Amino acid sequence: MPSSIIADAGRAPLALSLGDPAGIGPEIAAKAWESRVEQNLPAFFVVGDQRSIEAVWRGPVERITDPAHTVACFDQALPIVQVEDAGEIIPGLPNSAGARCSLDSLEFAVGLTRSGAAAALVTGPVAKSQLYDIGFTHPGQTEFIAERCGVAAENVVMMLAGPTLRTVPITTHVPLIQVIDHVSIDLIVARARTTERGLVRDFAIERPRLAIAGFNPHAGESGALGREEIDLIAPAVERLRAEGIAIEGPLAADTMFHARARARYDAALCLYHDQALIPLKTLHFDEGVNLTLGLPIIRTAADHGTAFDIAGQDRADPGATIAAIRLAASCAENRARSA
Amino acid sequence: MPSSIIADAGRAPLALSLGDPAGIGPEIAAKAWESRVEQNLPAFFVVGDQRSIEAVWRGPVERITDPAHTVACFDQALPIVQVEDAGEIIPGLPNSAGARCSLDSLEFAVGLTRSGAAAALVTGPVAKSQLYDIGFTHPGQTEFIAERCGVAAENVVMMLAGPTLRTVPITTHVPLIQVIDHVSIDLIVARARTTERGLVRDFAIERPRLAIAGFNPHAGESGALGREEIDLIAPAVERLRAEGIAIEGPLAADTMFHARARARYDAALCLYHDQALIPLKTLHFDEGVNLTLGLPIIRTAADHGTAFDIAGQDRADPGATIAAIRLAASCAENRARSA
Repeated sequence: MPSSIIADAGRAPLALSLGDPAGIGPEIAAKAWESRVEQNLPAFFVVGDQRSIEAVWRGPVERITDPAHTVACFDQALPIVQVEDAGEIIPGLPNSAGARCSLDSLEFAVGLTRSGAAAALVTGPVAKSQLYDIGFTHPGQTEFIAERCGVAAENVVMMLAGPTLRTVPITTHVPLIQVIDHVSIDLIVARARTTERGLVRDFAIERPRLAIAGFNPHAGESGALGREEIDLIAPAVERLRAEGIAIEGPLAADTMFHARARARYDAALCLYHDQALIPLKTLHFDEGVNLTLGLPIIRTAADHGTAFDIAGQDRADPGATIAAIRLAASCAENRARSA
Repeated sequence: MPSSIIADAGRAPLALSLGDPAGIGPEIAAKAWESRVEQNLPAFFVVGDQRSIEAVWRGPVERITDPAHTVACFDQALPIVQVEDAGEIIPGLPNSAGARCSLDSLEFAVGLTRSGAAAALVTGPVAKSQLYDIGFTHPGQTEFIAERCGVAAENVVMMLAGPTLRTVPITTHVPLIQVIDHVSIDLIVARARTTERGLVRDFAIERPRLAIAGFNPHAGESGALGREEIDLIAPAVERLRAEGIAIEGPLAADTMFHARARARYDAALCLYHDQALIPLKTLHFDEGVNLTLGLPIIRTAADHGTAFDIAGQDRADPGATIAAIRLAASCAENRARSA
């Protein structure tokens, strides 16, 4: 993408896909819009079926066909780019038409962000099992977005970002005893490189400092409590340092997430899901943002699901979505500035 | 032990073993004594070589031969029960004579606590490799104390306690890929029972609420991400509930340690070391206390090591030792009250 388009994107509104119309996505998008002044949010438009919002919210909605019209109406109404009808919408009760609608919304929002009409993409929560039923072949939204962006799914990196901690799980939804079969020196090196580039480009950190956790208790205690640190992590760290990447570790995972320890790095690479998510959610449960690094576009998401059990009850908390909007805008500004 | 002795122990002073004379144990014991008024600490005496304190601290020390003399001198001086000479003491440089001294101190302090002369035992940090060199056959102090108390080492439970979280690792210093070979339904049940009894007896919680973490991401997602929850954890939970123990889980480990989630249980059982220690140390790095449940005596320890690298430099922080003293005293009071 030529840098002029990226620079323009820095001033464009953000795109929010609403996710499953029967989930809490429409409600939290509307609540985020309601808080726009108080939270000083950048202009955004949503992509989805207008009726999914009207089913749970009585505020003003304005249909737009061009994202460029977002700014003009954002003060008065929630701007929406309408996709095809989602069929019958009953909050809390997902169905196939809704799954198709969530996929249409995602696809449309990705396209608008790819084109530069939106500065960044914030995705709402989808129902994976419903998507699989209608023939969706990707494990999740991230892999779908990667494909639409022409990036191999294994080259994108999930980062969890909170106000005082950023973590990157090197593996994600893998049974714990199989984790180590999925980890290689090459994978650690690739994840670290993508993380470093993301910190430079999206967070404007000139010289990022990475840390990597050990796999075993006490980072293996020189082999006494496991050899993964010696056989996999240390060689990866050595290769990364030879490339000029500042990385510390393998560190004992239990002593690397308290406040003084966190101050020493910009992102922590973790070997498995819970190693990355326990500290992040322990500290920042209501503000954790899922950010996808390694894409040509900026993509964030609130780190929660469709929550069908509370959909339509006006109980959903928009905090994480607000944090995701904020982070997406900040990354877009940083990219535009450096372009 | 007859309950009258335990009741007396509730009014007895606490015993602090100094640990390795070349480590930070003597310095943090002295600093804890210095803070006795400000921190409103209960009377305690230390057990070790007086010279290890004098090597790093210029305050008043008073030798006592009977713990009952502690209260009379505690205002003016740090009371010490002297053990055999530790040989040459150079802070930061451990040696065999020092290891023997740390073992003598531990043994003496355990005996005084067993007898009821001390209300509880707080252990200072020892150098394990030095202890192994002089023929120490236990993995650590905890197993030694268990043997001296006539309890099988596998029946004691390590609890990490901070101001807003208590965790119990079901396995501790085991390579992560071997953890599951060490876990059985029986082990989970035994650990949970000991934890429950400890919460009743030492924390005066009438009806403790336990939680147990899943092993896999999202607690296995009904088997899609691993079967340990189905094969091991759920059956253990069922057995415990049948016994009348209130236990919730297996819970997704990443979403059980934020503030609202923590409020729902009194202790969290975790399957492996880092699962228990990451949240504890992320939240309470400077105040984490290691408490041994399942013993006839009360035993706590600061959750850190000898720190030979900073010994003798007046840089050691007594915070965790102060927290360990405080918790030991509170547990002793609770036991005495219920005896």
